[in-house]
Amino acid sequence: MMQSDYMAQAIAAARLGTGLTYRNPLVGAVIVNNDRVLAVGHHVGFGHAHAEVDAYQHVTHPEDVIGSTMYVTLEPCSHYGKTPPCAQQLVKWGVKEVFVAQQDPNPLVGGKGIAYLRDHGVQVHIGLMEVAARQLNRAYNFYYEHQRPLVTVKVAQSLDGKLSLNDGKRTYLTDTVANADVDHLRASQQAILIGSQTAIDDDPRLLVKEKVAYPPVRVLLDRRNRVSHESRLWQKNKTPLWHFVTGKESTKGIEDDIEGKDTRRTFIAPEWSIGKVIQTLSDKGIQSVLVEGGTHIQDAFLRAGLVDQLIIYQVPEIFGGQSLASFTSSANSMRTRFTPVTIEKCGNATKMTFIRPSLAADWGLD
Amino acid sequence: MMQSDYMAQAIAAARLGTGLTYRNPLVGAVIVNNDRVLAVGHHVGFGHAHAEVDAYQHVTHPEDVIGSTMYVTLEPCSHYGKTPPCAQQLVKWGVKEVFVAQQDPNPLVGGKGIAYLRDHGVQVHIGLMEVAARQLNRAYNFYYEHQRPLVTVKVAQSLDGKLSLNDGKRTYLTDTVANADVDHLRASQQAILIGSQTAIDDDPRLLVKEKVAYPPVRVLLDRRNRVSHESRLWQKNKTPLWHFVTGKESTKGIEDDIEGKDTRRTFIAPEWSIGKVIQTLSDKGIQSVLVEGGTHIQDAFLRAGLVDQLIIYQVPEIFGGQSLASFTSSANSMRTRFTPVTIEKCGNATKMTFIRPSLAADWGLD
Repeated sequence: MMQSDYMAQAIAAARLGTGLTYRNPLVGAVIVNNDRVLAVGHHVGFGHAHAEVDAYQHVTHPEDVIGSTMYVTLEPCSHYGKTPPCAQQLVKWGVKEVFVAQQDPNPLVGGKGIAYLRDHGVQVHIGLMEVAARQLNRAYNFYYEHQRPLVTVKVAQSLDGKLSLNDGKRTYLTDTVANADVDHLRASQQAILIGSQTAIDDDPRLLVKEKVAYPPVRVLLDRRNRVSHESRLWQKNKTPLWHFVTGKESTKGIEDDIEGKDTRRTFIAPEWSIGKVIQTLSDKGIQSVLVEGGTHIQDAFLRAGLVDQLIIYQVPEIFGGQSLASFTSSANSMRTRFTPVTIEKCGNATKMTFIRPSLAADWGLD
Repeated sequence: MMQSDYMAQAIAAARLGTGLTYRNPLVGAVIVNNDRVLAVGHHVGFGHAHAEVDAYQHVTHPEDVIGSTMYVTLEPCSHYGKTPPCAQQLVKWGVKEVFVAQQDPNPLVGGKGIAYLRDHGVQVHIGLMEVAARQLNRAYNFYYEHQRPLVTVKVAQSLDGKLSLNDGKRTYLTDTVANADVDHLRASQQAILIGSQTAIDDDPRLLVKEKVAYPPVRVLLDRRNRVSHESRLWQKNKTPLWHFVTGKESTKGIEDDIEGKDTRRTFIAPEWSIGKVIQTLSDKGIQSVLVEGGTHIQDAFLRAGLVDQLIIYQVPEIFGGQSLASFTSSANSMRTRFTPVTIEKCGNATKMTFIRPSLAADWGLD
């Protein structure tokens, strides 16, 4: 086996934690001695064993680890979090050599784990299959490298780019197959954001049907506090609702029971630009946001330069006439280019994924 | 070889006439005797030999044709057009049996060629590989079966369905590769139609760059006679320009030199609904029309129920803001469903082709 084969095995193992690690990255580890795989491990869930420890726990004879080589997709941690630092453990176990695919972008770790290992006589190699390993944690990497969440704008539209018939009723575009795909997309996010008009028109709950350990926070951008407390979004629920309202602390009718069991939370400020909303989510540790509309919100994110990923579900219909097009506002238009990633059939829709061109190299697409 | 192999050979031969037969159909013919192909022929061009005659001309020993079987993609003609009737010739040559893929939808021929052959002792089989043979002549079949041209609406748009930045300047969306594909699409049509706003905004010539024997007629729907005679469209050219204007015969500034060398022709009527324009083109023998916009014209065709084929070139950009969406008018919207045919990369665009669902079976797509 080659070194890249072992790392590929570590990357595959990392994926087993999908949906379970919350704000932690997916990580995989493989322990090898004399060209023999002793154990494979992965970060099994937020607050649970890291990949290195999980691998070690699967070793039959711990003494075999002495003098071994470890392949790990992300730099071993060096800080006491919910578990003791891995770098320290590796030294204790007698690991002699470590291949790290990617240095941790989290400043709490970044470089310190590697430095600790080297300081303790472990030979460390950085960058083996780095591009592939980075794809495990696109939002995590983006969050620490850009100091804000990765913003995905999702649009369901007709062939002529229309969102609804504009007849005061909710327009259903996608079928059950495409809807299940959207649900899966939501489940992969840490927050879902909509504007007040969508909340009023569609009265959505924004809950994920898929069983997930950490459902995305529902973010309602409702500057003028127009959304009724009778709405389905406002009903008490285990999934948090973060309500962004313009005004003074004394704004009436807003509950703020952060300390209690109520997961509804109101953020009040004299103004809420898109940038400020995203900064607030960032400050709260949110690494990924799915923006679901409506059209003014889509356009506001575009204007703010905050569309990192764009996912369009396009159904084979033309609406025509006066119907509302996506990304429409009262402000002037401008051209924003994207890089196509994938295009695929998804139920009755064509699902098209695009990213900000500057992300292409990082996402292994150039 | 099986019967369908011979017919497949005839269909392949038919395609050799692509671009040369004008309003005539593509037709292929294969003459077989004792399981041996004596000759293959095709309709070589408008006003030239029909497929049956072309095949016969390629036979080395004409006496071999006596007692032979002919495979022909379309019913042999029975009328004197630009060439003598083929059905009569087949009998004269001694053909004993004929496999016809498709009966001719042209009422001048339809069934009469077959009847002539049967009346003269030739055994005729109809329908071998009919669906495949019909794809050779989609517009021709549609024209005779629906008594109007096949209407294709072509749209070049951004991901949010926008056509232009609405800044008074022409917005270029597609790159040279996609533009060449559009040119090829135009070259396959018998007419190209635009509205006055597109003529004014873009000042196009609507000429086909590809070398074609019969360039498409340029149709300008200019009800209020707004397009300047200084426009590039109005310049004298070998390619006809048909100008549709509302008014009385005396409308000023309109040339009507139909008898002369001027290919510009004006059609004046008290009103021009989309249906009436299409009916007029139909009366003039036009079998296919490419509608190129603008947005009001697109929507008017949609409302008139006259979008048979829809081809969208979508470029990976978002325009947002106030930019103009495709298929937009002041009238109410409605949902019109299409059946996806193909989706492919085309230069900087994704080219998506759709058809009216009722055409799917006929186009061999269900």
